Amino acid sequence: MIGGRDVIKVIEAMTPLYVAVGLGYGSVRWWHVFTREQCEAINRLVVYFTIPFFTFEFTSHIDPFTMNYRVIAADAISKLLTVGVLAAWTWCSSSSKSSYSWAITIFSLSQLTNTLLVGAPLLDAMYGRWAQDIVVQLSVVQGIAWMALLLFALEMRKASGAAGFAPAAIVAGAGGQVVAPEPQQATDVECNTDVAARPTLGSLMKTVWLKLALNPNIYASVLGVIWALIANRWHFEMPRIMEGSVLVMSKAGTGMSMFSMGLFMALQDKIVACGQKLSAFGMLLKFIAGPAVTTICAVAVGLRGDLLRVAIIQAALPQSISSFIFAREYGLHPDVLSTAVIFGTLVSLSVLIAYYEVLGLLS
Amino acid sequence: MIGGRDVIKVIEAMTPLYVAVGLGYGSVRWWHVFTREQCEAINRLVVYFTIPFFTFEFTSHIDPFTMNYRVIAADAISKLLTVGVLAAWTWCSSSSKSSYSWAITIFSLSQLTNTLLVGAPLLDAMYGRWAQDIVVQLSVVQGIAWMALLLFALEMRKASGAAGFAPAAIVAGAGGQVVAPEPQQATDVECNTDVAARPTLGSLMKTVWLKLALNPNIYASVLGVIWALIANRWHFEMPRIMEGSVLVMSKAGTGMSMFSMGLFMALQDKIVACGQKLSAFGMLLKFIAGPAVTTICAVAVGLRGDLLRVAIIQAALPQSISSFIFAREYGLHPDVLSTAVIFGTLVSLSVLIAYYEVLGLLS
Repeated sequence: MIGGRDVIKVIEAMTPLYVAVGLGYGSVRWWHVFTREQCEAINRLVVYFTIPFFTFEFTSHIDPFTMNYRVIAADAISKLLTVGVLAAWTWCSSSSKSSYSWAITIFSLSQLTNTLLVGAPLLDAMYGRWAQDIVVQLSVVQGIAWMALLLFALEMRKASGAAGFAPAAIVAGAGGQVVAPEPQQATDVECNTDVAARPTLGSLMKTVWLKLALNPNIYASVLGVIWALIANRWHFEMPRIMEGSVLVMSKAGTGMSMFSMGLFMALQDKIVACGQKLSAFGMLLKFIAGPAVTTICAVAVGLRGDLLRVAIIQAALPQSISSFIFAREYGLHPDVLSTAVIFGTLVSLSVLIAYYEVLGLLS
Repeated sequence: MIGGRDVIKVIEAMTPLYVAVGLGYGSVRWWHVFTREQCEAINRLVVYFTIPFFTFEFTSHIDPFTMNYRVIAADAISKLLTVGVLAAWTWCSSSSKSSYSWAITIFSLSQLTNTLLVGAPLLDAMYGRWAQDIVVQLSVVQGIAWMALLLFALEMRKASGAAGFAPAAIVAGAGGQVVAPEPQQATDVECNTDVAARPTLGSLMKTVWLKLALNPNIYASVLGVIWALIANRWHFEMPRIMEGSVLVMSKAGTGMSMFSMGLFMALQDKIVACGQKLSAFGMLLKFIAGPAVTTICAVAVGLRGDLLRVAIIQAALPQSISSFIFAREYGLHPDVLSTAVIFGTLVSLSVLIAYYEVLGLLS
């Protein structure tokens, strides 16, 4: 049973995030401290500096040799299952281009969560430090593997934007029927609707790889994992001078990111950008469908007790901000994703407490 | 005796600040992440949000009933002595306007230090938590009383800018010989060189009061002190939800401020903006004259041992950033102050370690 005190602890841990969002929102809407261009500057500060340090700080402190691989497996199976179902649906669909686009968005909505900013403090408040460790481990896998997959899917969609779309054709392209010698050509395809050339799988991979290598957050994740592997293999601690230098920036992570989210909210015309029906659909995927699939997979893998609870709650966390940034970059339903981030984050506290209460009742 | 380990501890505590400065500098000079306008946005973020929360967080945790009033007295006497000497010099000087302007700058350079951002972590690393508490107490006095005095002096200079200058005349104005019924008129004087009206002391005070009330950092200091008084009088703790909400922003304070200082450095044409002679003069005032006066006063007040050391080292901290912001706003030697902040902060680590070593030798 979850008592009132447990719930208060969760509210205490999460309210500061909303305060930072509120300050960001108010600074634009009420106090007129920042112009639209200035908000972009703060967004850049967050994307290029505070968040990468924040990610590195968390990632570098995991122990890759004692990770909870059962929870990670449950999460991975749930994501693979979702990918499988969506792939089958795209395959069978009459309008494969539109379905493929929606498949990407549905995957994002149901499976990619804000693990670090919201998940880490929330699960720490709910179940303690070990639960936070698990969510950090899941964030590493999501940040590296699943974000790469999302980027790959988005690049595939972009590359085939010119001459109609069938994902199978692209995959077949790897066999050599489709020619696109230069990656530059591949990425420029959407500008030249007359060009019949389609990228090979190799050139697509190259583009994705480059994008990943230039993404400061993925950079930070990979560096963090490398550090964690070396440090735990040879049992040494991060020198204090390095730890401090990372912390001086990473400590700004939560506050500045949430503040920046508030700025973003304030710049939108409305909180629900994509219409009520679509946003209800998004919330359903995010808070019901995603956690449901994960629950099935977690039970199947044999998770029980608090481990099962943690696996379910981490699946019901609000939308990953990176997934929205990619959606905006590739012009794929950015309004749906922005609603999921904004509205989803606002309502998530009550949804997550409801999950917490209900899961607490089950023995 | 200060051993190598003590020095390393200090370097460990201070290096992160320089890393943040370096990231800010590099983001403009090397990586071209921010334009000039965007740097202004980050500066606003720091001035209006992170620093006020940072100040409130420190200030609200002092205990006003157990402050070390002896150290505060030593510091206050040293500042009053400086004010007295400078006032006498201005009085006797032939060009009283120029001397008055320089008197303000000399006071700034020799007495106003970066107590919180640099002082708090430095003195914690050198002598422990009690020393940090003292420097926080001094920062409260500086932030409220001495910044108000500086602002008053700057407003006086500005108000008399029109018709020649003699500080005595302004003070005499309080007697009624000089008429300036509206504070608006008083602050607009410098635009109307034909207007003979000079502000009364009352209207000057009103302007200063308004400026102080609108300064987010002084706001934060006063609120912090009020909170500290109430909390310590009736012995209650800050509710966790409020503590967390302050922390989420205040934790960004150090990193974002130093980052912003790096941006500012990068936007300058040169680190030493005011010429070598003037900057040497500034450094002399900052690192030698200021601490020397404080040492005399501290010994006179009866401070000995580590308390004396803390009093001296806090006087040798680099230039207060607020003093530079005021200098820029009022156009009073901003290049000298900017050099003191930039160059002073860069060289301060070695100067402060030298002080630490030398003071450690004295028993």
